[in-house]
Amino acid sequence: MFTYSCRVYYEDTDAGGVVYHSNYLKFMERTRTEWLRDLGYSQEQMAREDFLFVVRSAELDYRAPARLDDELMVTAELIESRRASMRFRQQVHNKVDGKLLCEGTFLIACIRAGSFKPVSIPDTLRSRYAQKYLLEEK
Amino acid sequence: MFTYSCRVYYEDTDAGGVVYHSNYLKFMERTRTEWLRDLGYSQEQMAREDFLFVVRSAELDYRAPARLDDELMVTAELIESRRASMRFRQQVHNKVDGKLLCEGTFLIACIRAGSFKPVSIPDTLRSRYAQKYLLEEK
Amino acid sequence: MFTYSCRVYYEDTDAGGVVYHSNYLKFMERTRTEWLRDLGYSQEQMAREDFLFVVRSAELDYRAPARLDDELMVTAELIESRRASMRFRQQVHNKVDGKLLCEGTFLIACIRAGSFKPVSIPDTLRSRYAQKYLLEEK
Amino acid sequence: MFTYSCRVYYEDTDAGGVVYHSNYLKFMERTRTEWLRDLGYSQEQMAREDFLFVVRSAELDYRAPARLDDELMVTAELIESRRASMRFRQQVHNKVDGKLLCEGTFLIACIRAGSFKPVSIPDTLRSRYAQKYLLEEK
Repeated sequence: MFTYSCRVYYEDTDAGGVVYHSNYLKFMERTRTEWLRDLGYSQEQMAREDFLFVVRSAELDYRAPARLDDELMVTAELIESRRASMRFRQQVHNKVDGKLLCEGTFLIACIRAGSFKPVSIPDTLRSRYAQKYLLEEK
Repeated sequence: MFTYSCRVYYEDTDAGGVVYHSNYLKFMERTRTEWLRDLGYSQEQMAREDFLFVVRSAELDYRAPARLDDELMVTAELIESRRASMRFRQQVHNKVDGKLLCEGTFLIACIRAGSFKPVSIPDTLRSRYAQKYLLEEK
Repeated sequence: MFTYSCRVYYEDTDAGGVVYHSNYLKFMERTRTEWLRDLGYSQEQMAREDFLFVVRSAELDYRAPARLDDELMVTAELIESRRASMRFRQQVHNKVDGKLLCEGTFLIACIRAGSFKPVSIPDTLRSRYAQKYLLEEK
Repeated sequence: MFTYSCRVYYEDTDAGGVVYHSNYLKFMERTRTEWLRDLGYSQEQMAREDFLFVVRSAELDYRAPARLDDELMVTAELIESRRASMRFRQQVHNKVDGKLLCEGTFLIACIRAGSFKPVSIPDTLRSRYAQKYLLEEK
């Protein structure tokens, strides 16, 4: 499974002493961005091909708090692929003790930059992740 | 229904030209914080009584993008009240044209500050929102 | 002097229990944005006239920490006006006890949207703030 | 000189298409945090010894914008060391073309956690950075 590591800095925490709840969405988006880059699709490449991905819906479960200085390991697993959207399951674990801290499901839509209209995910990208991650397309 | 208004500033937007998806969670939390204050429970009051609320789970639907300078109206509706948790339904609308931009459901748990252990929501707070917002407790 | 009020929410704080240092820059920018709006220049109006303002330099002094739930009053005082730039002095006070928490000086440049090249501040805007805020132009 | 690398994600950018100005302060703080860790002082170790560092003042010059997906290299150079404070000079460069994007000077104070009173920087930490970075103490 694809993984991305990051550290919790002061910027990520709140006065409760733990990671502020919306910041897990940042960690998860960094991970999807690196998942795309790993398939040859940097943000720059997507801009050249005039499309981008946006979040259509998200479901988050907060299991345990991450704290200042924790090392996190974030996963991204493509669980559904459609013509113009992808669904990811993502988890954030404490890298040291492996504890699950947060998990989420994200529906990501492919849109035309500018118009924000849905467009098909480019075939090159689809075939790359089909080859690498999916047993069967739906 | 309880509402809170805010403006979209540069800090809230991203290079896509719209509000960054995780920032709607901030707007929604500001609104729940004001909902609590309206019932007499400022963060300071809660610190004195040694409890705080944390997000246990969230479901978000992104309907349309908010843009720089938009005025937003955010709602908070208590849809379920339990001994140690509350469930809210929240919506973000464009204040000018009324368009629905984002909606979400949040399960909020009451915990002891320090230990992060679940505790009962204080009776005073429960009776205040029961009186003000709930037709029937579950 | 122009003032803007805001509240400190969880999103603004860090694990030190106080407002994270970079967030004062957000409060100060919101204030400059409202200063401009007060002169008839919303971000939308500026986009129509194809210019925007960016921060060229900043000097910040952190005097005392702001805490969760504090009400802040932020000032913006134009202290120097040039053809393509403005210099602001800004302060953040605790609204209740008046304590000075943070102060800063910002050099703001007027640039063409897209090219990011410096352009003259529109005469209409210059004459409005000259009339309202400046005794003498430099 | 000590360096830290990071990537620009959507969360870091604003509707101007570039990195939001206050976010450079986050990159610079991550770098100072890693500088401390490199000397054996993680946030956890500092919490055990009951002290932390806070920003007392900052001066920032914004030279050129960083954009989505840019790889940044951030430096931290200790330029002055006093009993209870340190002064750092920091620069943010584009890692690929080496262009200077932002530079700043930060006065960092050592304080007691809890009381926020100034305290001496621990001798162990002082001797470590004296050995590693400073030719002469002031």
